[in-house]
Amino acid sequence: MVEHARDSSPREALRALLAADTEPRLRRLVHALSPREAAILIESLPPGRRELAWELVDEEDEGEILVELNDEVRAQIMEGMESAALVDAAEGLPLDDLADLVADLPDDITERIIRSLDEDERELLQSVLVFPPDSAGGLMAPEVVSVRPDMTLEGVLAYLRSHPELPEDLYCVYVVDRRRRYRGVLQVRDLLGGAADARVSRFMDTEARPIHCDTSASDVIRQFRNIDSSVAAVVDDEGRLVGQITADDVVDALQEQTDHEILGSVGLDEEDDMFAPVAVSTGRRTLWLGLNLVTALVAAGVVAWFKPAVERVALLAVLLPVVASMGGIAGSQTLTLMVRGLSQGRVRNSNVRWLLWKEIAVGLLNGLGWALVVTLVTLGVFSNLEVALIAGAAIAINLLAAAASGVLVPLILRRINIDPALAGGVVLTTITDVVGFAAFLGLATMLLL
Amino acid sequence: MVEHARDSSPREALRALLAADTEPRLRRLVHALSPREAAILIESLPPGRRELAWELVDEEDEGEILVELNDEVRAQIMEGMESAALVDAAEGLPLDDLADLVADLPDDITERIIRSLDEDERELLQSVLVFPPDSAGGLMAPEVVSVRPDMTLEGVLAYLRSHPELPEDLYCVYVVDRRRRYRGVLQVRDLLGGAADARVSRFMDTEARPIHCDTSASDVIRQFRNIDSSVAAVVDDEGRLVGQITADDVVDALQEQTDHEILGSVGLDEEDDMFAPVAVSTGRRTLWLGLNLVTALVAAGVVAWFKPAVERVALLAVLLPVVASMGGIAGSQTLTLMVRGLSQGRVRNSNVRWLLWKEIAVGLLNGLGWALVVTLVTLGVFSNLEVALIAGAAIAINLLAAAASGVLVPLILRRINIDPALAGGVVLTTITDVVGFAAFLGLATMLLL
Repeated sequence: MVEHARDSSPREALRALLAADTEPRLRRLVHALSPREAAILIESLPPGRRELAWELVDEEDEGEILVELNDEVRAQIMEGMESAALVDAAEGLPLDDLADLVADLPDDITERIIRSLDEDERELLQSVLVFPPDSAGGLMAPEVVSVRPDMTLEGVLAYLRSHPELPEDLYCVYVVDRRRRYRGVLQVRDLLGGAADARVSRFMDTEARPIHCDTSASDVIRQFRNIDSSVAAVVDDEGRLVGQITADDVVDALQEQTDHEILGSVGLDEEDDMFAPVAVSTGRRTLWLGLNLVTALVAAGVVAWFKPAVERVALLAVLLPVVASMGGIAGSQTLTLMVRGLSQGRVRNSNVRWLLWKEIAVGLLNGLGWALVVTLVTLGVFSNLEVALIAGAAIAINLLAAAASGVLVPLILRRINIDPALAGGVVLTTITDVVGFAAFLGLATMLLL
Repeated sequence: MVEHARDSSPREALRALLAADTEPRLRRLVHALSPREAAILIESLPPGRRELAWELVDEEDEGEILVELNDEVRAQIMEGMESAALVDAAEGLPLDDLADLVADLPDDITERIIRSLDEDERELLQSVLVFPPDSAGGLMAPEVVSVRPDMTLEGVLAYLRSHPELPEDLYCVYVVDRRRRYRGVLQVRDLLGGAADARVSRFMDTEARPIHCDTSASDVIRQFRNIDSSVAAVVDDEGRLVGQITADDVVDALQEQTDHEILGSVGLDEEDDMFAPVAVSTGRRTLWLGLNLVTALVAAGVVAWFKPAVERVALLAVLLPVVASMGGIAGSQTLTLMVRGLSQGRVRNSNVRWLLWKEIAVGLLNGLGWALVVTLVTLGVFSNLEVALIAGAAIAINLLAAAASGVLVPLILRRINIDPALAGGVVLTTITDVVGFAAFLGLATMLLL
């Protein structure tokens, strides 16, 4: 039944909705989806039909679905909602989700929502809102349970039992000193498996490293992979416990980071609506095309510079794209390895020089090998030994330049605070195009004219 | 201190090691690293120096570090280890990690390790080993605690207390029926916060969906994002509980999937050693260069076909790369959105037609806009109206072709079971090169010759 709801086309869904008696059924189907599934369903509909789907959502699910929607679609849906409905949707959300939502709400609604919280909740919400959303403080949930090291396990259990509202994500209990400074973690298995009269200090794990609240999302991901745990404490400057990050938040953060890098590398944004109107999408794509046109014109300028050679030997024009693209491909391989190595900490100051020489050696070997192939193919097909040799030489040169650029471009971009994952490809292919064209046509001009 | 160990160059580390009295200090520094940090440190060293770093590793950490190493480096290190050391390293590993390691061990060592396990452990290990490593069954940890719905919370606590060895990742307790079929989850917060004499059935969450053991890693990631929890039960064909997947395993799986897609798109493998010897790396890169050469030669063939036009008007050669690259860039944007939309479930049968028309409309608008710019630039720089108009027309045609290919190529590749994330780029740029060259030179041949 759920399958049916997911696969049916918006048009069918619409038609079904119009036949009034099926509405309760559709409502049940949408209700069976998780908030994220419902969000993706809504995002998959063209803008005009989204309101219809939103109508089918249970009021109590609205808040969680809004949190899952991408920024653009969320703004669209919230625009159509009454203030009272927005306040209702926000109420009852976990505080870290509420913090994400509040950033996008009009001030008067935020105020009404904050007024609906009790004092403790208000304080916790405040503690999340002070951090940027892509920091450890912004990712964390502030609701945690903490105990003192000199309590007995029995005491901890009694304390938990008397706690008015335990957090949903209770995967461990944190140990703090009297000034709330983080001291370690008491795992559930030790809490439940240990002797009742034993002290917390005997069982707590003091090696579990906390994460500082200002840590960037990408460093949170890296630290999480290092600690190999499903949960980590977040501490402030004074080392005081302020919240916890669970691995499911890290999964979301990692997916967002990946989307950001992959879409960013073609000039797009992960929060954009894939189903936005044509005019909006056209505008978003056009800037990147303009940037590419500039780099393409630079490469074209090199060809223009050597136009006399092409006028004399038109075969050069045939082989131009081959020389340039072999360099682009080889360079992308090195660049991709470097970007990944940098982000995962495999590439360090101490081994960059070694890597540069290695990549140059690989470029040289592959350059010579493929130069030979291109020379033979050109000779065989066009029976022009001179052009064949020049093409081979140009490929060898371009593969060397590609290897060096593949290592150096990301390092230089990083030094000037540009993300190599986003800009590396454009810079690199500009270099390999220019070097390829210049080497090929330059050699031809020297030797053939 | 730890920072120092991470940043010091291999050469310095080596030198320090040779001065015998610092060895204990280095050993302490390495010991302070998490297994993954130690693995990355070892991977960051050129092959020859890795054994030296391995010598510094505490024996008790060896197993966990081996698990974290990439396949190639792990094989290298294990080759240098004695059988007894391998057995020692494997002992004491969590069973899901052990299962990963066992796949790479020689049979006689595997046998010795299995003999060192008690019967329960052996059975659990077996239950993981039957699944491929990139399935839910392969990702899961088999050690879980399960209770029956008619137990009281007090009874559950007493059962846990009497349990000889509770799993490390005890984040919840699973509820099963008498045939071990999954019924729901009892959260720690409910177990600890509920009334002692209340039944499990009153508190258990029956909406938490289990994951089937045959689910692929990429579907596990998707389902995990949907359920928004840090842990999920894994069940077999009969719905029986066989283990659990925690979100930190999902973080690793997602990172691996991302690496696989990003490296795969330039013909590389995420398990390859970035610091492999030059000859090995050259061999690995060369195949992809060869494939690219074939596609480049196809594009060159198109230019060769229209060589008379280039012979007559060399300016055509100057603008060729511009026409081709504008198409490549526009097509990559659409392709990237499609691949991501397909993998996240946003692109469905029901909206593909809508998307195709939308992308074509975007391509048309951007094509006309940039065609005008290129026409004006060409006219301004080269004062050749005919070529300027032909270049503009070719760009408009190529952007349309790019938009259609960007939508259709990933759909077709997926239909024939080729991962669009890996092969989409090559196919797409071949199309935009060929269409760009053919449109530009074809029009020129018709209008100028």
